[in-house]
Amino acid sequence: MSRPASETADPLVDLRRDLHRHPEPAWREFYTTARIVEELERIGVDELYVGSEAIPGGRAGVPDEDELEAWFERAAAAGADPVVLESLSGGHTGAVAVLRRGEGPTVGLRVDIDALPREESADDDHVPAAEGFRSETGAMHACGHDAHAAIGVGVLAVIAESDFSGTFKVFFQPAEEIIGGGQAMAESGHLDDVEYLLCLHVGLDHPTGEVVAGVEGFLAVAQFEAKFEGEAAHAGGHPNKGRNAVQAAASAIQNLYGIPRHEAGSTRVNAGVVRGGTASNIIAEEAVVEGEVRGETTALMEYVRERAERVLDGAATMHDCGVEVEWDGEAPSAESDDALADVVAESAREVEGVDSILDSADLGGSEDATFLMRHVQERGGLASYVGIGTTHPGGHHTATFDVDESSIRIGVEVLSRAILAVGERRP
Amino acid sequence: MSRPASETADPLVDLRRDLHRHPEPAWREFYTTARIVEELERIGVDELYVGSEAIPGGRAGVPDEDELEAWFERAAAAGADPVVLESLSGGHTGAVAVLRRGEGPTVGLRVDIDALPREESADDDHVPAAEGFRSETGAMHACGHDAHAAIGVGVLAVIAESDFSGTFKVFFQPAEEIIGGGQAMAESGHLDDVEYLLCLHVGLDHPTGEVVAGVEGFLAVAQFEAKFEGEAAHAGGHPNKGRNAVQAAASAIQNLYGIPRHEAGSTRVNAGVVRGGTASNIIAEEAVVEGEVRGETTALMEYVRERAERVLDGAATMHDCGVEVEWDGEAPSAESDDALADVVAESAREVEGVDSILDSADLGGSEDATFLMRHVQERGGLASYVGIGTTHPGGHHTATFDVDESSIRIGVEVLSRAILAVGERRP
Amino acid sequence: MSRPASETADPLVDLRRDLHRHPEPAWREFYTTARIVEELERIGVDELYVGSEAIPGGRAGVPDEDELEAWFERAAAAGADPVVLESLSGGHTGAVAVLRRGEGPTVGLRVDIDALPREESADDDHVPAAEGFRSETGAMHACGHDAHAAIGVGVLAVIAESDFSGTFKVFFQPAEEIIGGGQAMAESGHLDDVEYLLCLHVGLDHPTGEVVAGVEGFLAVAQFEAKFEGEAAHAGGHPNKGRNAVQAAASAIQNLYGIPRHEAGSTRVNAGVVRGGTASNIIAEEAVVEGEVRGETTALMEYVRERAERVLDGAATMHDCGVEVEWDGEAPSAESDDALADVVAESAREVEGVDSILDSADLGGSEDATFLMRHVQERGGLASYVGIGTTHPGGHHTATFDVDESSIRIGVEVLSRAILAVGERRP
Amino acid sequence: MSRPASETADPLVDLRRDLHRHPEPAWREFYTTARIVEELERIGVDELYVGSEAIPGGRAGVPDEDELEAWFERAAAAGADPVVLESLSGGHTGAVAVLRRGEGPTVGLRVDIDALPREESADDDHVPAAEGFRSETGAMHACGHDAHAAIGVGVLAVIAESDFSGTFKVFFQPAEEIIGGGQAMAESGHLDDVEYLLCLHVGLDHPTGEVVAGVEGFLAVAQFEAKFEGEAAHAGGHPNKGRNAVQAAASAIQNLYGIPRHEAGSTRVNAGVVRGGTASNIIAEEAVVEGEVRGETTALMEYVRERAERVLDGAATMHDCGVEVEWDGEAPSAESDDALADVVAESAREVEGVDSILDSADLGGSEDATFLMRHVQERGGLASYVGIGTTHPGGHHTATFDVDESSIRIGVEVLSRAILAVGERRP
Repeated sequence: MSRPASETADPLVDLRRDLHRHPEPAWREFYTTARIVEELERIGVDELYVGSEAIPGGRAGVPDEDELEAWFERAAAAGADPVVLESLSGGHTGAVAVLRRGEGPTVGLRVDIDALPREESADDDHVPAAEGFRSETGAMHACGHDAHAAIGVGVLAVIAESDFSGTFKVFFQPAEEIIGGGQAMAESGHLDDVEYLLCLHVGLDHPTGEVVAGVEGFLAVAQFEAKFEGEAAHAGGHPNKGRNAVQAAASAIQNLYGIPRHEAGSTRVNAGVVRGGTASNIIAEEAVVEGEVRGETTALMEYVRERAERVLDGAATMHDCGVEVEWDGEAPSAESDDALADVVAESAREVEGVDSILDSADLGGSEDATFLMRHVQERGGLASYVGIGTTHPGGHHTATFDVDESSIRIGVEVLSRAILAVGERRP
Repeated sequence: MSRPASETADPLVDLRRDLHRHPEPAWREFYTTARIVEELERIGVDELYVGSEAIPGGRAGVPDEDELEAWFERAAAAGADPVVLESLSGGHTGAVAVLRRGEGPTVGLRVDIDALPREESADDDHVPAAEGFRSETGAMHACGHDAHAAIGVGVLAVIAESDFSGTFKVFFQPAEEIIGGGQAMAESGHLDDVEYLLCLHVGLDHPTGEVVAGVEGFLAVAQFEAKFEGEAAHAGGHPNKGRNAVQAAASAIQNLYGIPRHEAGSTRVNAGVVRGGTASNIIAEEAVVEGEVRGETTALMEYVRERAERVLDGAATMHDCGVEVEWDGEAPSAESDDALADVVAESAREVEGVDSILDSADLGGSEDATFLMRHVQERGGLASYVGIGTTHPGGHHTATFDVDESSIRIGVEVLSRAILAVGERRP
Repeated sequence: MSRPASETADPLVDLRRDLHRHPEPAWREFYTTARIVEELERIGVDELYVGSEAIPGGRAGVPDEDELEAWFERAAAAGADPVVLESLSGGHTGAVAVLRRGEGPTVGLRVDIDALPREESADDDHVPAAEGFRSETGAMHACGHDAHAAIGVGVLAVIAESDFSGTFKVFFQPAEEIIGGGQAMAESGHLDDVEYLLCLHVGLDHPTGEVVAGVEGFLAVAQFEAKFEGEAAHAGGHPNKGRNAVQAAASAIQNLYGIPRHEAGSTRVNAGVVRGGTASNIIAEEAVVEGEVRGETTALMEYVRERAERVLDGAATMHDCGVEVEWDGEAPSAESDDALADVVAESAREVEGVDSILDSADLGGSEDATFLMRHVQERGGLASYVGIGTTHPGGHHTATFDVDESSIRIGVEVLSRAILAVGERRP
Repeated sequence: MSRPASETADPLVDLRRDLHRHPEPAWREFYTTARIVEELERIGVDELYVGSEAIPGGRAGVPDEDELEAWFERAAAAGADPVVLESLSGGHTGAVAVLRRGEGPTVGLRVDIDALPREESADDDHVPAAEGFRSETGAMHACGHDAHAAIGVGVLAVIAESDFSGTFKVFFQPAEEIIGGGQAMAESGHLDDVEYLLCLHVGLDHPTGEVVAGVEGFLAVAQFEAKFEGEAAHAGGHPNKGRNAVQAAASAIQNLYGIPRHEAGSTRVNAGVVRGGTASNIIAEEAVVEGEVRGETTALMEYVRERAERVLDGAATMHDCGVEVEWDGEAPSAESDDALADVVAESAREVEGVDSILDSADLGGSEDATFLMRHVQERGGLASYVGIGTTHPGGHHTATFDVDESSIRIGVEVLSRAILAVGERRP
């Protein structure tokens, strides 16, 4: 794999920049996984599971072969290790690294590694553009998963060198953005013996130096794709012969946003993507709405889901169309455990550069890390989702999002210290 | 240009099938124009204008260079004459053929040659699929312009061999489907001396053997693209921060279809294409609606247009979005002249296979032939738009549209006889 | 019955003004019928059918008892003849007057007599306000039925004095505006022997002095009341517990107006009235939409009706409401017979003040006179709907509508002459 | 005032039932105020302010004179004291009762007394119907204000008999349901010296025996009336000439419900009432939407309000209508003070029949008591809003709402004890 020599003083920053230059969306993290595996092998781990060994089944939202093939080729062309690549073929991305160091507890760290299908800013004041590591793939690390991957590698290196006693696993999870990898990773078997699970996210509107010991307020989420099927007709000649899928979709969108709020807590609904029709003079035969529903609890999410299905049905009925609704990308709500969050908070206090520690704060969004957290909690373990502040110029998922790279080191230190403390104390 | 040897007994049918196999959308008629020019040269014409000599300026809706390049290459690979191709470079498609045969009147025949950007049926009972001349380009001749081109060539051959006295011009016009070529052809200068203009369309729900001497009821039309600009935000974390372009587009679509009917005559409105948003969990920053408005008269079309602009503005206002509306693809209404239609009707009576002649019938759609008709009529000439019945299994613009090839010969005979009669009689 | 002495030189104008001051909506024409009967008795007729003798059954849209009682009392207070009133009790309004004058054909004239439930302008330049005969009931003769009634009486008086040979019937029909009386009158039996039927309307955007011999373009119509039933809930405390009938109604209205146009001819749809909900802080339990569908033919009207039902259903489904749709107020399309219209046109030519005669013109609206016309035509008779121009300042159904009273005399003359001609000629 | 003799063993229950039989909406509480004053005079108070002495100005939402007159007459006919009635003329309802008992603190109790404009259930299992005190006015005490008034009277009687030291004021506030009386009462001057304010509500889904010491979660609210003005036209004849106010209102309603949720907390929006149009065949000239916006904080309410105005504007623009929006009925958010709530909780513990005490619970709705609470708090005083559980068969504001009358005694005891404790302890 040919890459420029280190451009910064910090190899983790170099790694993050390299991943940032090669962002890959869900199940297409070929270059990303190969690059991570290269680092893991350099560090040395006791067990390493890659591709279908990491995630044996149950992947949601895997793209079609052509799409996979195109990204696979791109990764190869960018210099990804062909041997590793081979094991990822078919979109079997992701990896699990294991250190086995004696008698202590089994501790896990989960980081997500996928990017978003959006363009990155080319503005001069957007650091990746100015410093030459702007995306080369058309996708973008607009949510900091490049930093997550770097922190995961960094923590592994620290624990490997430490006197940690126990088993330590890092889960490099693909496809978080489409809520496609979390459940599959949770059910991979690798989580079954984990007693303590830490997850992490950078940013979330917390500045560099702030740490959230146990993030709360995960909204349960489910994503849908509704396909309206009507009948095409010439809009000038036969307006009455069409069954208008675009009109049905528009009616659905209007009424989806009108789903009532719920007295018991926060809900969300979004029709994020719409596409339909073939030409301005043809009544549209087909239209697709991609959207999502969320709730502060899983029950609240289900409330919105039930209402959304009713709306989609009614909109199709109105315009004599059929509609098929596929639900996918589902994640439950979850809670961080205070006992584990307390350890994180205490550990953070000792880290230079940390000047604000919040016991908890709301995510206000969704995360498929909740699958892993619940998997561990249901088996009697503890989980906490840690926020590592990073001053970010643009909002998450926008074209000018970027991380303050000094937070990578902070993240590594906070999490390493917390893991060592867990190893000693078993909270 | 290498092609299979004649597959049928009729060279015009062969030509039609060849064009059917290589359908090309607006301003991409590279193979089509080259193939027609080849036939024209074989027949022998007095003057031949190709590319920018046929249409010097004013083309609407020309695609971008990459798109043009891709279709140009495809045409070359399919065996189009490289010399002709060169003259079409940049999307300068179309041709005008002229026979100069003495003192008589100047008579024009206009045929359109472009295809539609839609897939063709692969069903066994779809003749082009069964007989091996289904589209190879991804586009489709779903409106019979392949037959139009063949008829244009056939009529030219007949007139060339006849004792016609006068000047005869055939206009092979590109880009009718996007209403992009008519005005440009009308203003090319080649129409300025035309005293009698015939246009033609096959099918229109008239069966083989039926001829409409003078089609009426052209709806004036204008097409628009409305681009809503909002602001992206995470739908879970910051629902209030977005300015939702998909919601604005949905509201616009709903209300566009609600534009009131008009007491003075038929109107139409269609939102044929919608696309917007990037992901199910992001509030959409941008959404585009492509649509059209029509009216039985140009004034009625303008009525709908004015209402549509109001709706688009209001929808943007509602959701705090901006909207830019571009109008394009505009064609006026027009009337066939009875005096010329009468000649067509009389000529049709003599043609074998014609068993029903209608003086007039409604198109119920739009056509940019109206630009050419009005151009001729404004200079004191006469124009008629002739319907040549063809039994078609699927509707116009649908995947199973096809022409009954026996109507090609009928079209050639009806139009040739009419042109000869016009040469003699000057109606 | 005490009324002011004649205020104008013309007793028919006095009658019209008296009726204008006492406008009564459908099935509440108590004063109106009584006043007409008074005139009929003064003129002297051979047979007179009032109330349930005029219309024995099948009345649509009769209001409830309280409403009927209130208008009945008002009519009594205004001085209507108590004996006649008694026979109208229960909303049995309307009358049929018959002259039997020998061997000739049976000719009918139908006039409608009801008013609209809307307020009348009080502006100084509104003649009824300025001249002191503005409505005193809250309703308004905003469509000229006061003039129709006066013309009906006037024609009867002329024929009674003439040497007409045959039978002449005048049908004073209630409840045209709600399309409630036409079918009932058609099926009353009184039409069964009518060989020639004339109907009339003043105005319709034709100025005084213009006559339309045979109006065409009656749109078939059907009216509906859709009642959405949801569930009330406190909008602040329990937004999720409501099933929102106002939201369902709004969605229905939006999509009703979006019912596609039809290639085969004109259609219309209107949601004319909406009401729902009880308080701004309560999710509405019930909402009602009153609307109508129309078509150039009965088939086109049925097309819109079918689409409307689909929309109403879908809107209810979307918001978990029930919906009950009642269809009422239905009238078919109809055609004037040329042979009878020709007689009208010829008769109009002899009338002073008539300066423009149109063979036909489009109504562009609906009329339940079509029931009577079809009833006669189905039995082999002829019917024509005659337009008597009257210059009207405001549009039909608006607060400033008024008739030019000089058109009353023109109407009487045109129709009388036509009836006499029919009696002689049996066209 | 003639009333049946006591029907139950408890005079407060008798009072409640009498008020329940004579429910009066906002600013029409003539009988109610007179009846309360009668009780106050019986008990004996030191100062009594009635009508404009209680609320000198600033009343919002006062109905028109005819409406006031009708209710005034009804109250007189029902036996209200004519002398008291006189002082309420013009809708100056409400009263303030004052006990002056020495040196201690000034403590206030606020109860609201108005009813809702809705019909009451006549079902046999609805106690007021079964027991003969169902509403006789067409309005309904569907939110328990009849019980509030009785409790206010009851507490006053207890304090009057007690050894309370200080000043005690009871505010009998009109027009809570339309958020019309709170601000006016707050600014009446009578609150200026109040150091401790208690407010109360029965029910709120808390069963009999449960007490909420300090209710939280008041949503700030503002109510609007949006009047769309278009232009009428005949829907059949001139569909293009109308400017459709019903269509604008429907579009507004659809999009009001689509106002995005806010990350910072709960919001609400409701279009509770819609009415428009005059007839099914007329395009509606006018339509009115009555609705409200709410937010967990005043800022959140303002967010929804700003969005709502945008929607209303855009909907009018779309359909070429004008819109006038009047905002009214506004109340801020507020918080109960823990220190005062603690006293309530402790007092409740001593009351027989109280088996569950909650420190706090969410109202989830709005209340104009918040004006009074903030008025006191801004001057350094403490306020708490107390929930007195009552098992209610139907939800608040529904036709079958009713209170468990045993909770009246509980309310009197809890509040009396709290007031006595405040007098002693000055928390």
